This record gives sequence, structure tokens and C-alpha cells, in this order.
Amino acid sequence: MANPIYVIGHQQPDTDTICSALAYARLKQAQGADVVPARAGAVNPETRFVLDRWDVETPTLIDDAAGDRLILVDHNEYSQAVSGARGAEIVEVVDHHRIGDVQTSDPIFFRTEPVGSTATILTHLYDEAGETIETETAGLLLSGLLSDTVVLRSPTTTETDRSIVERLAETADVDHEEYGKELLQQKSKLGEKQPREMVLSDFKEFEFGSNQVGIGQIETVEQEVVLDQRDAILAAMDEIVSERDFDVLLLLVTDVLGEESIALIAGSHTEAVEDALDTSFTDRGAFLPGVMSRKKQVVPPLEKTFG
Amino acid sequence: MANPIYVIGHQQPDTDTICSALAYARLKQAQGADVVPARAGAVNPETRFVLDRWDVETPTLIDDAAGDRLILVDHNEYSQAVSGARGAEIVEVVDHHRIGDVQTSDPIFFRTEPVGSTATILTHLYDEAGETIETETAGLLLSGLLSDTVVLRSPTTTETDRSIVERLAETADVDHEEYGKELLQQKSKLGEKQPREMVLSDFKEFEFGSNQVGIGQIETVEQEVVLDQRDAILAAMDEIVSERDFDVLLLLVTDVLGEESIALIAGSHTEAVEDALDTSFTDRGAFLPGVMSRKKQVVPPLEKTFG
Repeated sequence: MANPIYVIGHQQPDTDTICSALAYARLKQAQGADVVPARAGAVNPETRFVLDRWDVETPTLIDDAAGDRLILVDHNEYSQAVSGARGAEIVEVVDHHRIGDVQTSDPIFFRTEPVGSTATILTHLYDEAGETIETETAGLLLSGLLSDTVVLRSPTTTETDRSIVERLAETADVDHEEYGKELLQQKSKLGEKQPREMVLSDFKEFEFGSNQVGIGQIETVEQEVVLDQRDAILAAMDEIVSERDFDVLLLLVTDVLGEESIALIAGSHTEAVEDALDTSFTDRGAFLPGVMSRKKQVVPPLEKTFG
Repeated sequence: MANPIYVIGHQQPDTDTICSALAYARLKQAQGADVVPARAGAVNPETRFVLDRWDVETPTLIDDAAGDRLILVDHNEYSQAVSGARGAEIVEVVDHHRIGDVQTSDPIFFRTEPVGSTATILTHLYDEAGETIETETAGLLLSGLLSDTVVLRSPTTTETDRSIVERLAETADVDHEEYGKELLQQKSKLGEKQPREMVLSDFKEFEFGSNQVGIGQIETVEQEVVLDQRDAILAAMDEIVSERDFDVLLLLVTDVLGEESIALIAGSHTEAVEDALDTSFTDRGAFLPGVMSRKKQVVPPLEKTFG
């Protein structure tokens, strides 16, 4: 008997990645496919809250996907995928990020849209398939959407996201602002974290030309709680750079209510990063007014500079 | 004022590529976008017949797209795109081929589905946008679909293609079998062609690992008319290999009614191609029973062997 197909999001999974794997697996199962929701790493506290709130089982942890068949959700670059993905067969992609480096031998279903969350696109896919979105699934999709758009405050938010949030909130029977605030509070539970954990808990790797670039992000309503540990965080970043051979390591500490970020830097290309982001670093920190989105405001200029 | 966005298909354009550029440009224009249908090469006789039949203007020829913004239809690899595409900004992709090497800095709308034609996916996009498909546009989409699926006979044909053909034929007010036969007759007008033209008229280039692989295809109801010129065609293929540095050059001469192909080969890796296609070449020709689709039956095994 053939192995099932795993529906799986990126490493250092966030709420949109986990909820998208769950919601898309449900849709495929409703259509008769043998698929299993999976994950490429530990579930963060916000996502744990969501899974408990909607009483949904945690997706299966995959250590090595070599030889498996995968549906990638919420990412489409190998550097962000589960280990072994290069040796797996990619059978579908549903994502809202830039187009990465996945290539296939056969034509597949590959769908990206420039919207605020993968959950938004999955809502379209339910509609197109004529499948009803049940309460629990609506709760998962709403959580992914609100988490990824910082409760519709991120500049990645589109009109489509706004109208879908209304509809999902109605089906899930919650007030989206109120529920969104509960999510934000989970995101902000930073005091308990170690510096290394802070850098890596929402972390993405990119290959820009020959450069390995890592970009972590902490979205918080208490920026000062993070910056109080600045020296320890910078030391952790230096450690990660030397362990994992990064050319550039950035950590965005994003104030989700003030809509601005402080970037911390490690690695060896500070000047190029200054040019790319049109800023300057003092003591390895730079102020980025208006910057909330790694994907939309940080990755593109860095890719242009390093790519 | 900003330049328009060009909606453009692959080099050596076929009917699906040209009709998709036209039909998608119409949809985007209906939505208020400043887009222009374009093409990357000369229109073939079948497509000329279609444009005349539906009284539609030929898309603008683009020589060099560097610096332009492009919507790619019916392809998503740079080796098949208009010259200068690597220096262009890719703003959307709609296609039904394998996932190629396009990467972007920003998230974009990227949509591939494993169906028989790009026209099939565009019909979905009209529906999703709630836009009516007018008679002329239905004629274009129907032509792309029937041409790419060899009037629903290719193994790439899906149930979706079949149901969309019925609907488009009704809107366009034609009998799809009858209209399809008219198209096939255009495709078969080979007697007038020079050997070099035969090899290159429907030709795609691939980079598999470090290997440059070119695969031409002639779909015909008169295989013997082509094979009568076998020696001249092989000489033309040798010429193309040395001019353009191909490692492998294949020409599939496909009998669309008999549902089989003869492959002719040039270049330096005959044994590897034999392994990949599970066949053997005699005097540089091999019989491929059941093989009608370059995309589905020839590209994947070659990519596995050379990639």
C-alpha cells in the first residue's frame, strides 16, 4: 500500500502553517484523498492555544521526508521545508510567499496568491470545490489568517483577507477583534523565553545568490521586554551565525501596535544590509519605521541586493 | 506613465500559448488592468487559422522583454520564455506544465494545474472572477484546449477539460469534433515545410542539471510525409545541435490518430535517452508506442535521468 501524502508547512511552524496543513488535509480528505496533516517542528505557544481552543489534534511530526510525497503549504522553498524535502516528491503547493526554488518533473497543482495568509487561499479552495467550511475548520482558518496578518494590521493584508475574516468569524462564532487580541497575547509571552529561542522561534532561511541569509522575527506588544535582553540576544545570534554558516542574520523585533521594527544584525555584511533597507545600524541595531512584514518589506530588498 | 504589462506565452508559440495570452489579457482588461497580449515568435499556420476564424488581432511581437513586466502564460521556465525575460519582472504565471525555474522577490499570483491546456485554467479564472466569456473569447479558449489536447485524445486530457470543451463549444456555437478536425488539418500541413522548420516549429528547451536538452514535436495524421524526409531532418538536427550546443536533441513525430510516436535523436547521449524512455534507437530512430505527450511522457523520464 502506498504511503499517505503529507500536507506540511515550513520549519519553525507558525499558526498559519499548522492551521493550513490541518485545513487543507480536511479538504483533501473530504474529496477522498489519502492525506495526513503534518508539521516540520515544534508547535509554538500561540498555535498550542489555537489547537486547544478548537479541540483539534496536533499534526504528525515529520523528521525526514525523503521518499515521501508532500503537499507544501505556506512555503515553497527547500531551505524552509522539512528535512529531506529535496528527496521527496512535491505533489502540490499552496502558498502566499514569493516563488522559490521548487521544480518538478510533472505538472502539478501550484497556487500562490499575494494575500495575507495561506488560510485565505484555502478558503478559496473550499469554495471552488463546493465544500462547506465547518465551525472547527473556520476556527483554524481564521486563526491562521489573523495570526499572519497581525489581526489585519500587517501591510500584507488585502481586501480579500478582510472579507474572508468576516465570513470565517461568523461561521466560527467569534468576534474577530476579540479573538485576535487573545492570539496576540499568546504571541507576546516572551518573558519566559531564552534569547536563542527568541531568535529561532519564527525564523526563515533564504539563499540569495551564494549568500545564506537568516531572518527571525518577534512580533510583540512589548518591544522593551525583548530589547532588555539585547546583549544576550546578539550573543545568541553570533553563535547561530558560526554554527550554521550564515552570511547575514537579522532579527526583526516588531512592535505590532506601533507598526515599526528594530532590526538586530549578525554576520558579515552590515553595509549591504544598510543599503538594502535604507537604514543604518548603531551598535548592531537599526530602527525601521513602518516595517511589519518580513515577506513584503525585508525579503525583497535583501534579495535584490544579495541575489 | 508606466509601461503596460505584457501577457505572453512561450517561444515557438502554439495555439494554446497565443490564445491564452489573448484570453487572459481580455480578462485582466475587463478588470481594469493595463495589459497587452503579446507573443515571443511567429504565429504558426494553425494559430493563423484560429485568429482569422475568430477575427482576432495578432498579439504584439516582443523581441526583448528586459525591463518589462510580464504575465507568463503556458510556460514557467526561462529557457522557454521570450528573450530578456530573466531581466524582466514576472508579475503572474498561469500554466499547465511542470514547475520550472522562475523565482520572484515578492509574492505573486502563480497558478498551475495538471490539466490539458492553459485555456482550461483560464476558463476557471473567468468563472472565479465572475466575468462572462463572450463568443469570440470562447472560440479562442476552445482552440487552445482542442489544439493542446489533440482534440481530447492526448493522455494529458482530464475530465475537467472534457466538461469545459462542451461548454466553450456551446458558447462559441461550433461542434467541437468538427472544429477540432479543422484544427488538426492545419497542424498537418507539413508538406510545405523545410526540415529545419519541422524540427523547430514546436520546440522546447530544457536545462536538466547541466544538460541542454531540446525536444521538438510534430503532431500529424501523416507520419510518413515527415519520415520521407528523415535524412534531411536528421541533418537539420545535427546542425541545430552544433549551432546551439545541445547535449540532446529529440524530435517526436507523433501520429495523433494512431496514438504513437517515432523519436529521432541528435547529440551525444543516445544510451541515456534509451534508458530514460525504455526504448532503443536504430539508425537514430525509435518507436514509442502510446507516447503522445512531450510534457507527460517524455520530459519527466528525461529529467529524472539527466536532472
